[in-house]
Amino acid sequence: MGLLESIHAPKDLRVLNLEELIKLAQEIRQEMIDVVSKNGGHLAPNLGVVELTLALHRTFDSPCDKIIWDVGHQTYVHKLLTGRLDRFKTIRQYHGLSGFPKRAESDCDCFETGHSSTSISAAVGFAKARDVLGERHSVIAVIGDGAMTGGMAFEALNHAGHSETNLIVVLNDNEMSISPNVGAMSSYLSRLRSDPRYDKRKEDIEYLLKRIPVIGTQVAKAVAKAKDSLKYLLVPGLIFEELGFTYLGPIDGHDQALVEQLLTQAKNKKGPVLVHVVTCKGKGYKPAEENPDIFHGVSPFDPETGKIIKKSAPPTYTAVFGETLCSLAKIDPKIVAISAAMPGGTGLKDFVSQFPDRFYDVGIAEQHAVTFAAGLAFGGLKPVVAIYSTFYQRAYDQVLHDVCLQQANVVLAIDRAGVVGDDGPTHHGVFDISIFRIIPNLIFMAPKDENELRHMLYTALQHRGPVALRYPRSVGQGVSMDEPLKEIPIGKAEVMREGRDVILIGIGPIVNTCLLAAQELRHRGVEAAVINLRFISPLDRELLSHYARQTKKIITVEDHILKGGMGSAILELLEEEGIEGVTLERIGYDAFVDQGSISQLHSVHGLSVKGIVKAAERLRLFHTSQTPMPLSGTTGK
Amino acid sequence: MGLLESIHAPKDLRVLNLEELIKLAQEIRQEMIDVVSKNGGHLAPNLGVVELTLALHRTFDSPCDKIIWDVGHQTYVHKLLTGRLDRFKTIRQYHGLSGFPKRAESDCDCFETGHSSTSISAAVGFAKARDVLGERHSVIAVIGDGAMTGGMAFEALNHAGHSETNLIVVLNDNEMSISPNVGAMSSYLSRLRSDPRYDKRKEDIEYLLKRIPVIGTQVAKAVAKAKDSLKYLLVPGLIFEELGFTYLGPIDGHDQALVEQLLTQAKNKKGPVLVHVVTCKGKGYKPAEENPDIFHGVSPFDPETGKIIKKSAPPTYTAVFGETLCSLAKIDPKIVAISAAMPGGTGLKDFVSQFPDRFYDVGIAEQHAVTFAAGLAFGGLKPVVAIYSTFYQRAYDQVLHDVCLQQANVVLAIDRAGVVGDDGPTHHGVFDISIFRIIPNLIFMAPKDENELRHMLYTALQHRGPVALRYPRSVGQGVSMDEPLKEIPIGKAEVMREGRDVILIGIGPIVNTCLLAAQELRHRGVEAAVINLRFISPLDRELLSHYARQTKKIITVEDHILKGGMGSAILELLEEEGIEGVTLERIGYDAFVDQGSISQLHSVHGLSVKGIVKAAERLRLFHTSQTPMPLSGTTGK
Repeated sequence: MGLLESIHAPKDLRVLNLEELIKLAQEIRQEMIDVVSKNGGHLAPNLGVVELTLALHRTFDSPCDKIIWDVGHQTYVHKLLTGRLDRFKTIRQYHGLSGFPKRAESDCDCFETGHSSTSISAAVGFAKARDVLGERHSVIAVIGDGAMTGGMAFEALNHAGHSETNLIVVLNDNEMSISPNVGAMSSYLSRLRSDPRYDKRKEDIEYLLKRIPVIGTQVAKAVAKAKDSLKYLLVPGLIFEELGFTYLGPIDGHDQALVEQLLTQAKNKKGPVLVHVVTCKGKGYKPAEENPDIFHGVSPFDPETGKIIKKSAPPTYTAVFGETLCSLAKIDPKIVAISAAMPGGTGLKDFVSQFPDRFYDVGIAEQHAVTFAAGLAFGGLKPVVAIYSTFYQRAYDQVLHDVCLQQANVVLAIDRAGVVGDDGPTHHGVFDISIFRIIPNLIFMAPKDENELRHMLYTALQHRGPVALRYPRSVGQGVSMDEPLKEIPIGKAEVMREGRDVILIGIGPIVNTCLLAAQELRHRGVEAAVINLRFISPLDRELLSHYARQTKKIITVEDHILKGGMGSAILELLEEEGIEGVTLERIGYDAFVDQGSISQLHSVHGLSVKGIVKAAERLRLFHTSQTPMPLSGTTGK
Repeated sequence: MGLLESIHAPKDLRVLNLEELIKLAQEIRQEMIDVVSKNGGHLAPNLGVVELTLALHRTFDSPCDKIIWDVGHQTYVHKLLTGRLDRFKTIRQYHGLSGFPKRAESDCDCFETGHSSTSISAAVGFAKARDVLGERHSVIAVIGDGAMTGGMAFEALNHAGHSETNLIVVLNDNEMSISPNVGAMSSYLSRLRSDPRYDKRKEDIEYLLKRIPVIGTQVAKAVAKAKDSLKYLLVPGLIFEELGFTYLGPIDGHDQALVEQLLTQAKNKKGPVLVHVVTCKGKGYKPAEENPDIFHGVSPFDPETGKIIKKSAPPTYTAVFGETLCSLAKIDPKIVAISAAMPGGTGLKDFVSQFPDRFYDVGIAEQHAVTFAAGLAFGGLKPVVAIYSTFYQRAYDQVLHDVCLQQANVVLAIDRAGVVGDDGPTHHGVFDISIFRIIPNLIFMAPKDENELRHMLYTALQHRGPVALRYPRSVGQGVSMDEPLKEIPIGKAEVMREGRDVILIGIGPIVNTCLLAAQELRHRGVEAAVINLRFISPLDRELLSHYARQTKKIITVEDHILKGGMGSAILELLEEEGIEGVTLERIGYDAFVDQGSISQLHSVHGLSVKGIVKAAERLRLFHTSQTPMPLSGTTGK
């Protein structure tokens, strides 16, 4: 039995000596490598915080003291130390441990995170509540340097730094968010860490201070004052100091004793304190140290070699997007691309290398990304902003107020739309249709397959005015690619299949499931038309009205929340067109969606052949019998 | 004829001498005081930027050079100087000049603003576009110190500071946003402006540098180095310098010649430059200088005395909200309140003075405000976050991800919901229902009058879990107030009036218009039931189903965009409950809504007795004749 099995709660850590801690750290790393190599997950960030997490749990008393983990994907170590070792093998699986903090899992998870840059805000909240209630515990936010580029982290620093509340911000500085960090703050941190000018300057000035001769009493006073001033100026981390924080560090975040020493120092200080800890993403596992971006969030791999286990599959929607954008950018020099700290995740790596002067990584700063794009557009360019659906929620006002209200020529590429799988509810992209389809002036489309994605991207870039384009996190359908790219008429849906009994309306790749369901329905004597909606805004009023009047029965299917979604848009259309007597079934999600594989989640929520057949039953399409036949083998999915 | 009439474009300014400029500045101030005293508007911010605007238009060549005005309400001077003097009297009126920059009004309005902290992002966009296209003009963002507290301004600084793009940020520092500024950045700016330690330190160190003796050649080198380092450290505005900007200032923003001199210096510098200009909000008009918060956005007033022209009217929803919160907070010590730089606008001034330790003004930082509230809630308090509907769009992800996903006990007070009048499309709160009703776990309600608002606020604070409460920018209905406060059953609608022919469903004060319309319909032989929906989430399924099944005809009325709104929620309910054969008419907005008085806008868009009667016609409720009778005099509204 290893040491790790003996740790049931943070208090068990406090009896260990340094040697044992080093052994424990090894065991933790091994456990994480073992499990993540099977389940996939955020390996590199967790390998980087082993010593820091141990130090936090030895210095502070969780759950009494509140530790809030920014973005939360680096809490595997924390989970292993807070009584969840036995369930660790289920991490990120359906009904298993979450890959993020979960209040329901443990009292030690006091705040749920998943999106970046929220931890300081939450920590200020905990700290102020403590003060109002006259309590005395410590509150600690652990935030990466990447997350520091998010504006809301600055808003929180600005608030906290002004007050005298006791609060500790641990800046976990690994020079990366997912990709290497960008921006002025990052340069600043890098100077703090490593620029020899900084150390030199300090040395020089100290040398100088010692040499200043005291020339009479009159001057002595001035000199004393000046020394004070200089001392003040010599404090490193001046930005943080100017914002009202006491700055401690930077120190090596893998030196267990040193980290504990600095945290103890912070614990005993009054007011807001920032502890600058430098860590190495992927620490202790060579493949992850060498490729921290690949091992940031990794799919299953061979733990011996670090090689990702790849299945041969069609290219992902993301890859096709990136490739198409590159080929369009070759022809049109006005096309530029923007990423919010995810050039890799959004398929833009090739764009970066092919068009370095036309690519902008703005950091974890979705708000700025979108308004910046509006500026680029009015400056005469054609910007494409690629952000995950769940993170576009951060830029809602900017899309509405800065892009759509003034009709800027911006293409909003909404990646990871629909459920995303094992990252779970914080990361599913299931709200974008409802929130974006209501914005006037915005064209909003979604392709049924990766080939259509290419034509839609082309169409979006031809269009004058804002366009949103949503596509999922998954491999494509494996269809062949049409050349040349052509414009899809704005607002025109596509009839995939005719049928007199019912219309299946889908948006995005789920249209393919609708086609399979139509086959299954045919086996049962029901002829279903299948419509690939293509455009959520504007809707194809003519075509939809025509089909609705004909069949009077509609099933809508969307990888999205039901409220306000695509099905709801169809209901509005029926009302507006005064089409009466239509019965309609909507398939989608009615609550936050759990973690699990995408196909599992689709299946559970009826986004499947079976689910569509059931909806057809609810529409009383099967006249012969009330009890459904078993699904025919050919189309089971 | 004054000088102002001779200014048709910015170039006309360049022939004036200093004396003429001073006279012109006076004329501009007089014109603004005259017009705003009649129309209402953002007087104090505009009085503060007269000299700055003149200097900008003399130094730069708009529209070739791009000037972007943050929040945009300080562009009256700019409008007067760019060919809009003749229409200035129509400012903020229906079909008149906008109170904000409008691309359609002038080439000199290159970017539309209205929400805070967007200007640097847009400017970086213009600057990068210029670089890609090989153009050479200047790009200038003019941003207040209040707007600097918004996270997205930091995101943009972080991006710009890292690049070498030529870009000028003019920091218009008046120590105010709408209320006096808060936060660490504000303290920092105030130190830059005024702290004698700063000047002293500079003097002291310069003195010291002069006195350092040269002791042999070996030491000389170290001393020279140290001098360099000190020089670097002596630069004021170190935060901005550390973020990659050249910092110029601070200077008096009302010294015409000095401002022009500094702007010219900035124009000739390479890379990003920050020009720190200190101005006085309300400058040149005593009542506004003395009460800059009242004259920030002011209703009509007597220009002689500065007294606001008040009509006797019931208290506003905002005032009733503030008052009720105070009385509840007296009893429950866990209630705390949060504002994003608008304690006055959100009715919290009394709360601030009565409970200073339980009130938090976080600056123009809606994202932080909401997540901070989630932290407060999990820390054991009952936070109420009061933000305008249009600015809640800035915190959408925080409401969804930080409050609702983990079911924090946060009350979201959504002020200024519905059209807000003359501020126009950037400020109307007409998207909140669609974007918030779709979030799982969130209770969402709206009162029909100010008395119901009180009970709803009480109800919200009793409820465990997140609650949103929307109410408009207007005076109440003048109803009497019930005591004691009581809980309204969650999810229960209220039947205001019975009627067999049609149901009118309203949400918010528009319910009162529904009641008037029901009277009018009765005159025409139609009996309308009126339902005060009260809860958008959850809907009162039972009651609504019952009435829908009975009458089969529904008219929904909402002060909100139609897509995804309340009417759409009713359509979803009918589908889910399988209620067939219902015809429904939805009244609301179908595009961005112009500026104008609230009653004007309601009337134009059918949120009126007339509009509801018309909807009844479309539902073919009048059997006797196709052509409608004129409205009866008694209910015309």
